Amino acid sequence: MISKNRISQIRKLHVKKFRDESQLFIVEGYKSVEMLCSSDFEVEEVFATEAALHDNNWLQRHSPTLITAEEMSRISTMQTPPELLAIAQQRTKLPDIPAEERVLALDHISDPGNLGTIIRTADWFGIQHIVCSPDCVEIYNPKTIQATMGSFAHVYMHKRPLATFLREESARRRILGTFLNGEDIRTLDFRPSDIVVIGNESNGISDEVAQTVTQRITISAAVQDRPTAESLNAAIATALVMYQWLGF
Amino acid sequence: MISKNRISQIRKLHVKKFRDESQLFIVEGYKSVEMLCSSDFEVEEVFATEAALHDNNWLQRHSPTLITAEEMSRISTMQTPPELLAIAQQRTKLPDIPAEERVLALDHISDPGNLGTIIRTADWFGIQHIVCSPDCVEIYNPKTIQATMGSFAHVYMHKRPLATFLREESARRRILGTFLNGEDIRTLDFRPSDIVVIGNESNGISDEVAQTVTQRITISAAVQDRPTAESLNAAIATALVMYQWLGF
Repeated sequence: MISKNRISQIRKLHVKKFRDESQLFIVEGYKSVEMLCSSDFEVEEVFATEAALHDNNWLQRHSPTLITAEEMSRISTMQTPPELLAIAQQRTKLPDIPAEERVLALDHISDPGNLGTIIRTADWFGIQHIVCSPDCVEIYNPKTIQATMGSFAHVYMHKRPLATFLREESARRRILGTFLNGEDIRTLDFRPSDIVVIGNESNGISDEVAQTVTQRITISAAVQDRPTAESLNAAIATALVMYQWLGF
Repeated sequence: MISKNRISQIRKLHVKKFRDESQLFIVEGYKSVEMLCSSDFEVEEVFATEAALHDNNWLQRHSPTLITAEEMSRISTMQTPPELLAIAQQRTKLPDIPAEERVLALDHISDPGNLGTIIRTADWFGIQHIVCSPDCVEIYNPKTIQATMGSFAHVYMHKRPLATFLREESARRRILGTFLNGEDIRTLDFRPSDIVVIGNESNGISDEVAQTVTQRITISAAVQDRPTAESLNAAIATALVMYQWLGF
């Protein structure tokens, strides 16, 4: 059972302004809610339809609020409403960014699906720290959270003025930036202390951030003798760099 | 100028049923329309706003119909309408699938964005033939076309009963299937004559198709000592396999 008032509170969380004000966000679907509940996030409330209660004993520990499918469809952001939805507090404290660990830096990634997929892939490859420029799409955007498939709970997302942060870091580690021209990632000697910068979907790495890059890198296309794709999707490019980076 | 009747004809093409009936589809945005116009697709009509005409001399060859931004917003499928939109005929004839070329097979890929990203990445890596199971999302879905960023014009998309096709092919080439367990792609000796099968986003490769697979392959996660992502996005997994496949 859920009150009209509570429904309208939750629906407000569909909008960034109210997520910012309340410091809350929405997590939807089995996998994501399960990973949320086993993480260090503060979970405020879990909503479940009757179907969700059947095979999920772990849910009982979180005293889910039972609601109807119709009520779920009113609080969900998804076209096909989930059977589980949780409200959680945004992270306010983050651990320091380690100096000797792989770090990914995102310069103005604007598509929520791309950001979520990048977080999921980073998690797969064991990268725990991602630094986002202030103009990146919001981490707690429901589409981002959904695309992470729960990996938002494993990866620390730092928001920093990117050029300033990278300039400081460049004193003690390499800053690798993805460009259309640069050293082929297949031949580069990646290091665990590197930071890799990924640019915006349409415009690539901004001029200000480009000035902090100490090594330009690129992903080569396989053929040159006929027209092919002019670029890769940002999440795909990130994945290929991480695959190579983690592969030694 | 565009008539009300023409607007309603084009709006019908937002729906699969009418795309199937008319064998037409919509292409939107500079890059995609440009790549369409330089391909072997039959272009029926190109619509342009005044802004589009300025820096695009190549457009004149296609006698674009000038329409207002408001009219564009009515025929576009996008939230932010483009300055260029084209109507083209679906491919009816496709070349044979070559026996000695890399072929990608998709088993029930259901997300249009994933399919489009897979096509774009395949094009980047020079793969020209993709075989889709009949239950894959439609190639001419506007979201698929958009996500290809024009690469739909370079890659041949074959629709086939997948298990039957692969069973026949397995007599003369290897069928590699992506599973959670299998030989690590980093150590596998890929061949140019291989076919790689990618499964559905949630359920992986179907049982019927799995029976035709002659070699199971997998992408290893980088860490085992703490919880990480349980799987990769389907387009990311496909990209990593192609990267390794093309890398020798």
